[in-house]
Amino acid sequence: LTSTQPHRTPDPFRDGRSERMFEVSCRQERRYEVHMVDDVFAVDSRLAPLLAKRKTLAVTTPTVWSIYGQRLEALRSALGADLAVFVLEAGEGRKSMDMVLRICELCHEHELGRTDSLLSLGGGVCHDLVTVAASLVRRGIPHVSVPTTLVGQIDAGVGVKGAVNFRGSKSYLGCFAPPAKVLVDPAFLQTAPARTRTDGVAEIVKIGLIADANLIHLLQEPNSLLSCETPSTNRTQMVLWLAIRRILEQLSTNLFEDQTYQRLVDFGHTFSGQVEELSGYEISHGCAVAIDMALSAAISLTLGSLSNTGFQRILTLLKECSLPIYSPLLTVASCQGALRSAARHRGGHPNLVIPHRLGSGGFVTDLAILSDDVLADSIARVRTP
Amino acid sequence: LTSTQPHRTPDPFRDGRSERMFEVSCRQERRYEVHMVDDVFAVDSRLAPLLAKRKTLAVTTPTVWSIYGQRLEALRSALGADLAVFVLEAGEGRKSMDMVLRICELCHEHELGRTDSLLSLGGGVCHDLVTVAASLVRRGIPHVSVPTTLVGQIDAGVGVKGAVNFRGSKSYLGCFAPPAKVLVDPAFLQTAPARTRTDGVAEIVKIGLIADANLIHLLQEPNSLLSCETPSTNRTQMVLWLAIRRILEQLSTNLFEDQTYQRLVDFGHTFSGQVEELSGYEISHGCAVAIDMALSAAISLTLGSLSNTGFQRILTLLKECSLPIYSPLLTVASCQGALRSAARHRGGHPNLVIPHRLGSGGFVTDLAILSDDVLADSIARVRTP
Repeated sequence: LTSTQPHRTPDPFRDGRSERMFEVSCRQERRYEVHMVDDVFAVDSRLAPLLAKRKTLAVTTPTVWSIYGQRLEALRSALGADLAVFVLEAGEGRKSMDMVLRICELCHEHELGRTDSLLSLGGGVCHDLVTVAASLVRRGIPHVSVPTTLVGQIDAGVGVKGAVNFRGSKSYLGCFAPPAKVLVDPAFLQTAPARTRTDGVAEIVKIGLIADANLIHLLQEPNSLLSCETPSTNRTQMVLWLAIRRILEQLSTNLFEDQTYQRLVDFGHTFSGQVEELSGYEISHGCAVAIDMALSAAISLTLGSLSNTGFQRILTLLKECSLPIYSPLLTVASCQGALRSAARHRGGHPNLVIPHRLGSGGFVTDLAILSDDVLADSIARVRTP
Repeated sequence: LTSTQPHRTPDPFRDGRSERMFEVSCRQERRYEVHMVDDVFAVDSRLAPLLAKRKTLAVTTPTVWSIYGQRLEALRSALGADLAVFVLEAGEGRKSMDMVLRICELCHEHELGRTDSLLSLGGGVCHDLVTVAASLVRRGIPHVSVPTTLVGQIDAGVGVKGAVNFRGSKSYLGCFAPPAKVLVDPAFLQTAPARTRTDGVAEIVKIGLIADANLIHLLQEPNSLLSCETPSTNRTQMVLWLAIRRILEQLSTNLFEDQTYQRLVDFGHTFSGQVEELSGYEISHGCAVAIDMALSAAISLTLGSLSNTGFQRILTLLKECSLPIYSPLLTVASCQGALRSAARHRGGHPNLVIPHRLGSGGFVTDLAILSDDVLADSIARVRTP
């Protein structure tokens, strides 16, 4: 029924040997360090040597700049660094190729060389734009990521993906471009907008449910990242770092999404796009992911892969995190549409991730198993749990 | 003085272990096949199964389309293939991000999925545009390369690089994106413009001089690729295939240019950009490369790394190939400018490639060795050889 064994994607373009054939083959080693740091703007921080040794173009947002601009300026002065700053209005609507090319234009104006660097100092959109620009300039220059939101710190800002929207399609153009370095400073979370915290918590729940029950336990304790107003305490940092480690462990086995179409990190990301879209983006990404996780858990229960106790624990957890578990936008038709779309993107199979028990998940690979009846039953379970 | 030992580029962004550090590490295996084929439009060709199995957007040029359009249409009909064709006006001036985004737009309109494919059927510019578009659409979709010019078949169209011009800078934006497959059909050379043949011959001479003396001998024989009007004979195909193999052997050791800044394939590509630019692009790329190779050989002679006999053989060869060996645009000042620019691009050293003996070359890594006197003496050797 379901499987946890990833299968390797075959290469449909290989013919095998022939007389006048040359096979070009190359192993590319990619590695980068993700550090949790204390005060990223300190003169002795890990950021300082990066700025001191090369020309840098920092890209940031008006909010981050208004709060931290002076500290970055002070660091530049102390180091005598060759640092230019571009403050861009972020937001999903500006995640466009125009903005990417504006960043490229500034790289050109500031004459960044192949070993000079871009720096993204902001949330997910800022990171996306910088990643795509860095991948294009001179066929790829380094970019350093300093994520300032929870979702950036545990998800968008620590991975290798960047993308922009194009002709009405979300993330249609993009790249896989590993950052040169990621510096996670939990202090930013004290000033990040509340909405971005909720989105981040949803992603922590996601990774906990499929990869580490302990992360879920820690999240539910008092003074956890979830409930704490000043998320820079030792306790909240511990949860944050554990979440980062678990997501990176998952990502690093399939960094370029070329090993398998079965990815546990897709949990909560099968129906959520549909929910976001149908709501006219009124429902945030994190809330849509929560609604998707609840439905996926219900499907797991319906298919006999999750106990009722396990299902109830997941619903309780989501509610404790102030996350929704249901939207009336979930209909059998909309869900079937989302599954077909997922199948197109995931090598012909929906590869729906469902939780088995706390900290472990599997895949539903066969569309036929996800019949209208199964979906209707499962939707009913989250509508009136 | 000079060295043939490549040195590995160090990673300046690595700190090493710390308590809260996660190192993301991933080996990416990239491979693709380059085939020499007999009739790429035949129903039983290697192209046919690629078109039959997936949706394809072919990008081609007016010239190629006028000559081969009917054959591609016939193949599409015979296969019942889902194939759309975009005929674009090529030329260096249209190697722009606008054209790349136009191709991306067509991918979107035709709803190409992650495993559907772009096909470039044209020369270097067409290949560049398709490579960059393919690298961006859905974070990378496959692209098949069918180069139709000599320089495309032995150089631009068989490698992994794509780029466009941006804000007046040649190839400023681009990517490393390996093709899914390359199909080289020598029949195209019969209809390719004469100018593209000269450019291709210059690149064959380049690879022969630094990597294989036998290729040079073959090129100088009667009825070789060089002199033959119908370059599809067995003899010309042999030279073509040997050149492709030698260039791919060189490229594949450093496919993403991240292993070393010392690349033998940069032979003829240190002063040539300056020559092209100063001539207002009146001097073609191939001719500029020939002028650069002659000067680099003269420098090798001046520095005692090449015999006078060797130097004269190289000049004779270039002349036999109808390639120039000198331009008055070569001055000590313009050459020093080109060397400084190369050093910026090659990790701080000019890494000038100079021929040692036929089929073997090395590097001048130290700018100081290339004094004004050395350059003046060497320029004099090609001005009045």
